[in-house]
Amino acid sequence: MNIKNKTIQELKILAQDIRDRIIEVVSKNGGHFSSTLGAVELTIGMHKVFDVTYDPFIFDVSHQCYPHKLLTDRWEEFKTLRQFKGLSGFTKPKESKADYFVAGHSSTSISLAVGAAKANKLSGENKVPVVMIGDGSMTAGMIYEALNELGDLKLPVVIILNDNEMSIAKPIGAMSKHLSRLLAGKFYQGFKEKVDHIVKNYMPKGTEYIAKKIEESMKLITPGIIFEEMGCDYIGPIDGHNLEEIIDTLQLAKNLQKPVIVHAKTIKGKGYPLAEGHHEKWHGVSPFDIATGESLKKSTSKSATQIFSDKLYELAKEDKKIVGVTAAMPSGTGMDKLINNFPERFWDVAIAEQHAVTSMAAMAKDGFKPFVAIYSTFLQRAFDQIVHDVCLMNLPVTFCIDRAGIVGADGETHQGQFDINFLRFLPNMTLIAPRDEGSFENALEFAKDYNSPLAIRYPRGSFKTLQYPSAQFDTPKIEILKMAFDNSDIALIGYGAGVSRAIETEKFYDGELTIVDLIFLKPLPKESLKLLASKTKKWYIFSDSQAQGGVGSAILEFISEEKLNIEVVSFEYDDLYIQHGDTKLLEEELGILPEQLVSKIV
Amino acid sequence: MNIKNKTIQELKILAQDIRDRIIEVVSKNGGHFSSTLGAVELTIGMHKVFDVTYDPFIFDVSHQCYPHKLLTDRWEEFKTLRQFKGLSGFTKPKESKADYFVAGHSSTSISLAVGAAKANKLSGENKVPVVMIGDGSMTAGMIYEALNELGDLKLPVVIILNDNEMSIAKPIGAMSKHLSRLLAGKFYQGFKEKVDHIVKNYMPKGTEYIAKKIEESMKLITPGIIFEEMGCDYIGPIDGHNLEEIIDTLQLAKNLQKPVIVHAKTIKGKGYPLAEGHHEKWHGVSPFDIATGESLKKSTSKSATQIFSDKLYELAKEDKKIVGVTAAMPSGTGMDKLINNFPERFWDVAIAEQHAVTSMAAMAKDGFKPFVAIYSTFLQRAFDQIVHDVCLMNLPVTFCIDRAGIVGADGETHQGQFDINFLRFLPNMTLIAPRDEGSFENALEFAKDYNSPLAIRYPRGSFKTLQYPSAQFDTPKIEILKMAFDNSDIALIGYGAGVSRAIETEKFYDGELTIVDLIFLKPLPKESLKLLASKTKKWYIFSDSQAQGGVGSAILEFISEEKLNIEVVSFEYDDLYIQHGDTKLLEEELGILPEQLVSKIV
Repeated sequence: MNIKNKTIQELKILAQDIRDRIIEVVSKNGGHFSSTLGAVELTIGMHKVFDVTYDPFIFDVSHQCYPHKLLTDRWEEFKTLRQFKGLSGFTKPKESKADYFVAGHSSTSISLAVGAAKANKLSGENKVPVVMIGDGSMTAGMIYEALNELGDLKLPVVIILNDNEMSIAKPIGAMSKHLSRLLAGKFYQGFKEKVDHIVKNYMPKGTEYIAKKIEESMKLITPGIIFEEMGCDYIGPIDGHNLEEIIDTLQLAKNLQKPVIVHAKTIKGKGYPLAEGHHEKWHGVSPFDIATGESLKKSTSKSATQIFSDKLYELAKEDKKIVGVTAAMPSGTGMDKLINNFPERFWDVAIAEQHAVTSMAAMAKDGFKPFVAIYSTFLQRAFDQIVHDVCLMNLPVTFCIDRAGIVGADGETHQGQFDINFLRFLPNMTLIAPRDEGSFENALEFAKDYNSPLAIRYPRGSFKTLQYPSAQFDTPKIEILKMAFDNSDIALIGYGAGVSRAIETEKFYDGELTIVDLIFLKPLPKESLKLLASKTKKWYIFSDSQAQGGVGSAILEFISEEKLNIEVVSFEYDDLYIQHGDTKLLEEELGILPEQLVSKIV
Repeated sequence: MNIKNKTIQELKILAQDIRDRIIEVVSKNGGHFSSTLGAVELTIGMHKVFDVTYDPFIFDVSHQCYPHKLLTDRWEEFKTLRQFKGLSGFTKPKESKADYFVAGHSSTSISLAVGAAKANKLSGENKVPVVMIGDGSMTAGMIYEALNELGDLKLPVVIILNDNEMSIAKPIGAMSKHLSRLLAGKFYQGFKEKVDHIVKNYMPKGTEYIAKKIEESMKLITPGIIFEEMGCDYIGPIDGHNLEEIIDTLQLAKNLQKPVIVHAKTIKGKGYPLAEGHHEKWHGVSPFDIATGESLKKSTSKSATQIFSDKLYELAKEDKKIVGVTAAMPSGTGMDKLINNFPERFWDVAIAEQHAVTSMAAMAKDGFKPFVAIYSTFLQRAFDQIVHDVCLMNLPVTFCIDRAGIVGADGETHQGQFDINFLRFLPNMTLIAPRDEGSFENALEFAKDYNSPLAIRYPRGSFKTLQYPSAQFDTPKIEILKMAFDNSDIALIGYGAGVSRAIETEKFYDGELTIVDLIFLKPLPKESLKLLASKTKKWYIFSDSQAQGGVGSAILEFISEEKLNIEVVSFEYDDLYIQHGDTKLLEEELGILPEQLVSKIV
C-alpha cells in the first residue's frame, strides 16, 4: 500500500482500519497485541516519510510489526497470522521484501542499522535505515554496543524509541527511569533545581528577574544528554499517536543525515480500551472474546511454568538461601510469584541475560542458591557467561530452561531447539529433564541441594500425565518404565518430554517395547545403560532437541567408548530451523508424531 | 601483605618494588604488561582502603591483577607466572582466597559486583565490592546491563574506572570519546559553550558580569552526567598515580554506601619508559630484554594470524565487496593490516562481539562479504547473534576463528576448546579447517565466494609444515594424504591442526597407517567417508576440540545413520577446562602428544 499521497485525515482513518484488523485477527489467532496496537501511528509515519522499497525498515524484536505487515500487501493474508504455513508473527524476509530482517530476539536493531548504514555508504546510496525499538529493548547490552559505534561513525540512522514506559512487564532499571524522567519532563526539572541552587547561592542579590530568564533559557539544553553524549541527536518526547507531529519529526530526523533518536510516547494497547496501559497479560495473547476480553482458550492442566513457579515458591519459603532471576519474563517464566512474595531475593533484571547469569554466579560464590529462569532460546544470549562465569567456577547455579523444544506459533526465532546442544559439552555442567509434573517437582528438590551447575529443561505448556511413578534424581541412573521381555532387543529411550512421546509411540506398536527414561543426560547414567545394553540391541532416542550433538550423540559417544554393540536411531530434530504454527502440525512435518515414528521402528 | 598501617612514603616505595618485580618476571615469562604497570597505585589504594579478606575485590578481565597478586602473599611464587602448574595470569580463586572470581573475558565485573552486593545485603554484612575496570572494558554490553540494575538498586559498590585512554589497541567508540572529554575537562567546555550561547542570545543586555558568574557556577554541574543519569555517583577525574589522591577518594567513595564511579587517569606501562603510552604491542608481551625492550622470542615461521592477514589483504584488494570486523583485537587477529589499508571497509568495533556479528549480518544481507575475525573463546559472546542473525537468515558471513585449540599460557579462560561444539549443530552453518599454510589460503579463497555462513578455525601460532599438497575446499570431500595398504583397517582422521598431529602420530607407529584430512566438518563429506569405510575398520579422530559433541561425535552420528561397522576413537579434549602453561606440557597432561597417542593405537 503506497500511503505517500494520503492526507492526514485519510491516514487517521487508515490507522483505525489497521487497529480493527489487528483486533479482529489477533482475537482469533492470538499474538503480540498491545505493543503492536501502540505502534500504529508510528508505523504509518515511517511509511509516509521513508520508502519501504528503498530504506531498510528495522523492527526491534518485531513484536510491533503487524501494522507494517498490513501496510505491505499482507492485509488479506494477515488472517493466517502465526498459523502453520501462514504469516509469521515476526518480520521475515522470506515472507516479504518489505521485511529487512528476521527479529524475534530483542535489541538487534541498532546493530543491524549500523551494518545497513555502512553498506549504504559503501554502495554510494542514500538509504536511511529507520529503526523502531521499544523502551524495553533498550536494556540489553547489544544496544549500547551498537550506539557506541553509531555515535562514533555518525552515519545517518533514525531510531524511533517507542516508549510505552513498559517493556513486556514493567519498566526496570536505571535507563528506564531515565527515559521516564524524559517523558515526564523531569530531566529538565532536576536540572532546573540544580540551576536554581546555583542562582540562589552564587548570583548577586537583586537579580531575580535574571534568574527567571536563565531558567527559561535552560530549556534549550537537551534532555537527551545521555544520547547526545553517545553521539546521537535526541528529539523528543513527542506524542506517538499524533500523526502530524510524528510525520513532521521523522521528516526532520531523516533530513539531518546523522544518528537521531526520536523519543515517542505511546500507549500500549491503544485503541482497545481493555488492553490500554500497563497490563503484562495483553503483551502476548491467546484467542480472546473481543467484547469481554476473556480468553477463549480453556486452561486445561497445569503448565510446566506453573509447576516451576509453585514448587520454587514452596522451596524458597523454607530456604532463605534460594534466590533467583528472570530477564524480563516474570509471568512467562513464573518468576512473578517469587518476585512478588520475596522481592528482596528474586529479581527481574530486564532484557539482560548476560548480566542475569553472571550476577547470579557471584551470589552462588557467596553462598546463595540461585535459580535462573530463562527460555531456552533466550539463554543463548548468556552462553559465554555460562561457560566463563558459572561452569569454569563450578558454581551451584540452577538454570531453569522453560520453552525447551518446539514452542509453536512464535516459530523459528523462539524454538527451544539448541539448549542441550550448547550446554552438553561444558565441563562441570549437569543436565537433567523431568518427564512429568511430579518428576519436575523432584528435579527442583534435587536442584536445591545440588552443589554445581545444573540445567533443567522443560517444555512449553503442560506435561502429559503418565501412568508411572515420577522420576527420582538422586543419582544418575536410568529408569526403566516398562521392560518388554518379548521384544528384548528394542528399547525406546526418552529424555524429558521425549519420554511421553516414547510412551505414545509404543502404544502404536504391535506388541510391547521396553521404555526407558534417561533422566540424566550429563553425567550419562553409564552403569545402568550398560545393563540395558546387555539386554537390548537397538535403541531409539526421543528428545525435543537438535540431533547433531544432542541426546543421540551422547548415547553414541558412550557406546563407542564402551565398545558396545548397539544400533542407535535418534528421533530428534533435523538440521533446520523449525517454522511456526501449531506444534502438532510442526511435529508432523518433522515426522516425529508417535504414529509416524512407529513405522520407522517396525 | 597487610599495608593498612603503611605511610604514603612507604607505599610509594612499595609501588616501586611491585613495578620492579613485575618487570623482572614478565620480561622472563611474558604476560600482560602495560595495563598491570599502570594499575599499581590504584591497586595499592584498593588494598589500603578496602579489606581484601572481607570486601570482594573484582578485577575486570584481570589483565591488571599482578600488583594484587604481589600484595596477597604471592611475591615469591610470582616467578612461576603463566607457567605450567604455576601462577595464573588472571585472578583465580583456586590459587588464592584473595581472588574473588576468575576473569579472562572482559566486562563481567560490574555484574559480579551486583551479585556480591545483593549477597552482602541479604547476609546482613557490610562488605563493599570494589571493582577495577579499564576504559576498554566499558564498551561491552554487559557493563551497561549491569549498570542498569546497579543504578536502580543503589547498592554500595565502588567502581574504579582505570582510564588509560586506550583499551588494548586504541580508544574506540562514542563512550570512549565521552570518557576522553571527561579526562580532558572538555565536557565542561562543551557545556560552557552551550551556556555561553544562551547567555549571549537570551539574557538582557548589560549583564555580562552575571554571565561570568553563571559560567563559574556551572562547574558545579557534574561532568559524569551519563553515570549520574544511570544512577551512579561520579567522582573524577583523579590522578591514578597519586597515592594520596587515590586513597582519599576511595575512602570517600567507600563511605558513600551507594554506587560510585571513581574515574582515574592512568598511564599504561607507567614506570617502564619504553612501554609508556599508547603501544598495543606492550599490552601482552612475550619474554623481552629489559634494557632494550627487544623481544627474546625469535620469530620463526609465519603465524596463522599472519597468513590470514596477508591473504585477506590480497583478496580485499581485488574485491571491494569484502568487508570485515574485529572486536578490540586488531593486531591479535591480524585485522590491523586491513583496517589500516581499507579503513572504510574494515572496523574495530571495540569489545562488542555481539554487535560485531549482527552488524556484519546486515552488511551481508546488503550484498557485502563480511569476514568476522574473533578468537574462539571470545566468539562465545556472540553465540546468539550467530544463531539468530546469521544462520537463521542464512547469510554469507565468514567467521575466522583464531586461537582455536589450546592457547597455552593464557589458560582456562582463553582456550579455544568449544567453537566446534557450539557451531556444529547450527542449521545453514558450514565448518572447515585448514591443516597448513597453503590450505588456509585456499580456505580463504573458498570463503570469498561462498554464499552462506562459514566458519574457519585455525590455531594460535604457526601451522606445521607438511609434506603434502595443500587442501582444496571446492567440495566437501575428504583428502587421503596417505593410504597404507598394509594396515588397511586403521585410518587416522584429522581435522584442522589435528591433521599434523595425526601425521606425527603415524611416524611413531611401527608400520604405515592411512592418514585422512576431513577438511569439512559440516557438511560432513559423507560419500568419500563411505568409501573410506569400505576400506578401513577403525578410525582415530584428531582434532583440537572438546570431545563431547565434537568431531568424533559428528563421525559417530554419520556411522550410526549409515549403519557402518566402524570403531571410532576420539583423541579430542576430555571434559574439563584446560589450565595454563606451555602447550606441549598441557598436551602431555591431556595425553594427546603423538608419542602418547600411538600407544593407544598399538
